[in-house]
Amino acid sequence: MNHETYMRMAIEEAKKANAVDEVPIGAVVVRHGAVIGRGHNLRESDQNPLMHAEVVAINEASKAIGSWRLEDCILYVTLEPCVMCSGAIVMSRIPTVVYGAHDPKGGCSGSLMNLLQESRFNHQATIINGVLHDECSQLLKDFFKALRKKKSFEKMNKLNNSLS
Amino acid sequence: MNHETYMRMAIEEAKKANAVDEVPIGAVVVRHGAVIGRGHNLRESDQNPLMHAEVVAINEASKAIGSWRLEDCILYVTLEPCVMCSGAIVMSRIPTVVYGAHDPKGGCSGSLMNLLQESRFNHQATIINGVLHDECSQLLKDFFKALRKKKSFEKMNKLNNSLS
Repeated sequence: MNHETYMRMAIEEAKKANAVDEVPIGAVVVRHGAVIGRGHNLRESDQNPLMHAEVVAINEASKAIGSWRLEDCILYVTLEPCVMCSGAIVMSRIPTVVYGAHDPKGGCSGSLMNLLQESRFNHQATIINGVLHDECSQLLKDFFKALRKKKSFEKMNKLNNSLS
Repeated sequence: MNHETYMRMAIEEAKKANAVDEVPIGAVVVRHGAVIGRGHNLRESDQNPLMHAEVVAINEASKAIGSWRLEDCILYVTLEPCVMCSGAIVMSRIPTVVYGAHDPKGGCSGSLMNLLQESRFNHQATIINGVLHDECSQLLKDFFKALRKKKSFEKMNKLNNSLS
C-alpha cells in the first residue's frame, strides 16, 4: 500500500475528532504494513493537553509492540506535528513521518522550525509532506468555518436577548 | 513553601525512578501550593517513550483539575526538560517551570534551544533553573556511574566465560 492509503486512514481518524467537535486531526502508526496505533485529537473531550492525535497513536503503537523504540515505523498524520508531537516523534525514534497539511502557525516539523531534523538531537526523521494535502486541509477549513458561524450565531442570539 | 521544598518532592519522585533502575528524573506540578501531579521516569519499565517524569505529572495534574489548561501551575522537575516535555509544557500553558540540573546534551528549555520562551508559539513560560542543582545532578551522576560499573562487570564476566 502507498502513502495515500495510510493517509486516508489518518483522515478517517481526523473525522472521528470532527464528529465530537474536536479540531479534526488524525494519525496512524504503521509497522511492516500493519497499523499498530491510531489516534485522533481529543484535547477538549478529555480536557488533557497530551491528547493530540500523534501522542495517542504513539502510545497505542508502543503498547502494541511492547517497546518505546518505534524504530521500524511510519507515522502518518493529517497536520504537521506541533512542538510536543514533534518531540514525541524524536523520543520514540520514528524514522519516517508523513503529513498532509502544513501548519504555518504551530508546525515544528518544517514550518516554524524543524525538530525532526535537528542535528543536535540523537534522532532525525525523514519527512514526506503534502500527501493528500487538500483533503487534510479542507477538513480543518470546514471545521473552523463552522466554528466561526456557530460563534457568530451565538453572539447574535446574545445581542437579541439583551435587546428584547 | 519555597521552590526548594517542592524540588525536594521532585527529587523524591526521581528516587522512585532510581529504585526501579530508571534514569532518576522526577517532577511535580503545584497549584496554589498544593501538589496536583507527580511523576517519575518510567520509560524502560513501561516501554513507553511518553513516560517521562514531566508528561506523567502533567497528565495527572490535568486529570486532577479537569482541564488541559494548567494556567496557574508551577512545574518542578529535577532535570531540564527534553524536546517532548518542553513541548508538553507549552501545550499545557504552564506559566512557570523550575528545574534543577541542566541537560547540555538534550535540554530544550535553555541548553540546546529554548522552546519555553519561543516568541512564535502562543505560550511562553518563566524559567527558574539551578534549584537544588547539585542534588539533582548527583542523583544522575551516581546512576550512570553505577550503570557503567554494572556494564563493565558484565563485560568482564562475559570475557571470563568465553576464556574458561
